[in-house]
Amino acid sequence: MDYKKTSSSITNSNGKFAEEAQNRLDSLTKPQGSLGRLEEFAKQLVAITEENMPSLDKKVVFTFAGDHGVAEEGVSAFPKEVTPQMVMNFVNGGAGINVLARHAGAEVVAVDIGVDYDFGGLDKEGFVSRKVVSGTKNMRKGPAMTREEAEKCINVGIELANEYAGKGYKMFGTGEMGIANTTPSSAITAVLTGVSVEDITGRGTGINDDVLKNKVQVIKDSISINTPDASDPIDVLSKIGGAEIAAIAGLIIGAAANKVPVVIDGFISTAGALIAYMIEPKTKDYMFAAHRSQEIGHKALLEKIGLRPILDLDMRLGEGTGVALAMLVIEGGLKIYKEMATFAEAEVAGKKG
Amino acid sequence: MDYKKTSSSITNSNGKFAEEAQNRLDSLTKPQGSLGRLEEFAKQLVAITEENMPSLDKKVVFTFAGDHGVAEEGVSAFPKEVTPQMVMNFVNGGAGINVLARHAGAEVVAVDIGVDYDFGGLDKEGFVSRKVVSGTKNMRKGPAMTREEAEKCINVGIELANEYAGKGYKMFGTGEMGIANTTPSSAITAVLTGVSVEDITGRGTGINDDVLKNKVQVIKDSISINTPDASDPIDVLSKIGGAEIAAIAGLIIGAAANKVPVVIDGFISTAGALIAYMIEPKTKDYMFAAHRSQEIGHKALLEKIGLRPILDLDMRLGEGTGVALAMLVIEGGLKIYKEMATFAEAEVAGKKG
Repeated sequence: MDYKKTSSSITNSNGKFAEEAQNRLDSLTKPQGSLGRLEEFAKQLVAITEENMPSLDKKVVFTFAGDHGVAEEGVSAFPKEVTPQMVMNFVNGGAGINVLARHAGAEVVAVDIGVDYDFGGLDKEGFVSRKVVSGTKNMRKGPAMTREEAEKCINVGIELANEYAGKGYKMFGTGEMGIANTTPSSAITAVLTGVSVEDITGRGTGINDDVLKNKVQVIKDSISINTPDASDPIDVLSKIGGAEIAAIAGLIIGAAANKVPVVIDGFISTAGALIAYMIEPKTKDYMFAAHRSQEIGHKALLEKIGLRPILDLDMRLGEGTGVALAMLVIEGGLKIYKEMATFAEAEVAGKKG
Repeated sequence: MDYKKTSSSITNSNGKFAEEAQNRLDSLTKPQGSLGRLEEFAKQLVAITEENMPSLDKKVVFTFAGDHGVAEEGVSAFPKEVTPQMVMNFVNGGAGINVLARHAGAEVVAVDIGVDYDFGGLDKEGFVSRKVVSGTKNMRKGPAMTREEAEKCINVGIELANEYAGKGYKMFGTGEMGIANTTPSSAITAVLTGVSVEDITGRGTGINDDVLKNKVQVIKDSISINTPDASDPIDVLSKIGGAEIAAIAGLIIGAAANKVPVVIDGFISTAGALIAYMIEPKTKDYMFAAHRSQEIGHKALLEKIGLRPILDLDMRLGEGTGVALAMLVIEGGLKIYKEMATFAEAEVAGKKG
């Protein structure tokens, strides 16, 4: 598996299909354009899938879990054992993402890509073991991962995309879990958007002012010791990133290569999306931004890619929780497109003059 | 039926229940408050219903239809026969609201409160005949309705709320259909918020610059000829309002009196909500604002009541379409509250220190 081969196979979504979808949307019993973004979502799905009547029957949210060596610098409000504990919560169906994915009719697959815990031979539905690292290294002291490790994580994302596209899944979502993972996400954001560390570093799971001050310093130190090359996304990802962020980038690349729409969750997921976008900008055509996270760095990432979030509900949990709700809204748009009566069918008069 | 008796029976939602809901929300496996507005929605539902584990199994969107005499002033892009044609589209399940309500698991009830068309003895599921007027009168020439007609429309809304609460419906939504009905809604908005007519008059179903200019003048003339008393919501409603707007106000009053949450759609529905709020401010506790409409006057109405919309998807169709999508989001919040595991149940460690 070579991620470059996959990314170079990606094409833009199909404008001809988008045009045909627009014609149908304009024939439905409503003033033209009056369902706003719902209409855009339907059009984008048609253009991505190159199907006139696409379906979203099978949907899956991948929640990639990984630990972060930088957690030892005291950047999070929660202890790092919470990462594997939450993985078990996902597998048992009790976490936020489980509840909202059930609500949206989507499955959840928790992927151990880099948790610093041995799950043994855990063989449960909804759990996939693809461990590349047992936690990243502390990036304040050196690179979080090697270049090879980062590439391996990307490849896992691509392989999962290929596998689930092959199984007939019609929409993917990204999610993550990893104590301290807003720290590498902020570091990536600062390097790739050029915004100051202070302006894109937030409170994560809920740290106080002192811990926030420390977190900013840790991020600055990590960037200065590793000197990541902002023009090389793999260099950035390996030096100041994380395993789950890399896997999310890979999943997006794999989704685009398979012409499967992919819904991006909040701050950490969008850091992965920006990496994917830098590797291959055409991936953007396949992305839906689920929501605007309350984590302050998210805005800079969305703007850099040029994505407009669907929801804005002050959420900052991650896991893919925003994705699940956004899937319901996107599916609403698709149903409008597929199920509404046309003016002719319903015998409703059109616009005057 | 006297709407004043019903409105005076309304109490604030129950703060003690809200407190208990907050305690449960804080025990769930997520950083406190990290699901943002989803948590607020759950808390509001508990406080409204005074049930620790409320249910939203049965939901209904009322789409009130009415015609407007002022349509003869050329304020709309569509001819007025579209009102009854769209009512038939609702009954046949082909309109936007039907599609999105099915998606949300809600029923649609189309109510003829003031359509200028004789539906005969139309006896179809999802259609209710409660005609008070056969279209309002042209408000540019005098009052749209008498005070008695406006009160009758409010009472229809209350009666429907009582009936459906009695049948076990757990959530109501407001919607409307009526060619030209952004014109009375803008007039109401100008009088009750004090914002200039130009700043709250929009393009409705899609009028051009010339028609918009005419619409602004028609609204100004209607206000100056009728001199509605801004301190008397019934005076405003009857002189420059509409039958569906009055029925929506009544539905909201009835919902609050029955302790049933009510989701308010866009511009026209929120004009009805402001009337309800002026009759009894405690109704606000029972309201959810579905979305921010693209119709420019909506913002002033939301601010006047103090409501923050849930969605912002550039929609401007009405019918209750925003309500249906918002119901899905609100229900997501309720499921989070009811279904997530607690830290103790999932054996997940809490915050440090």
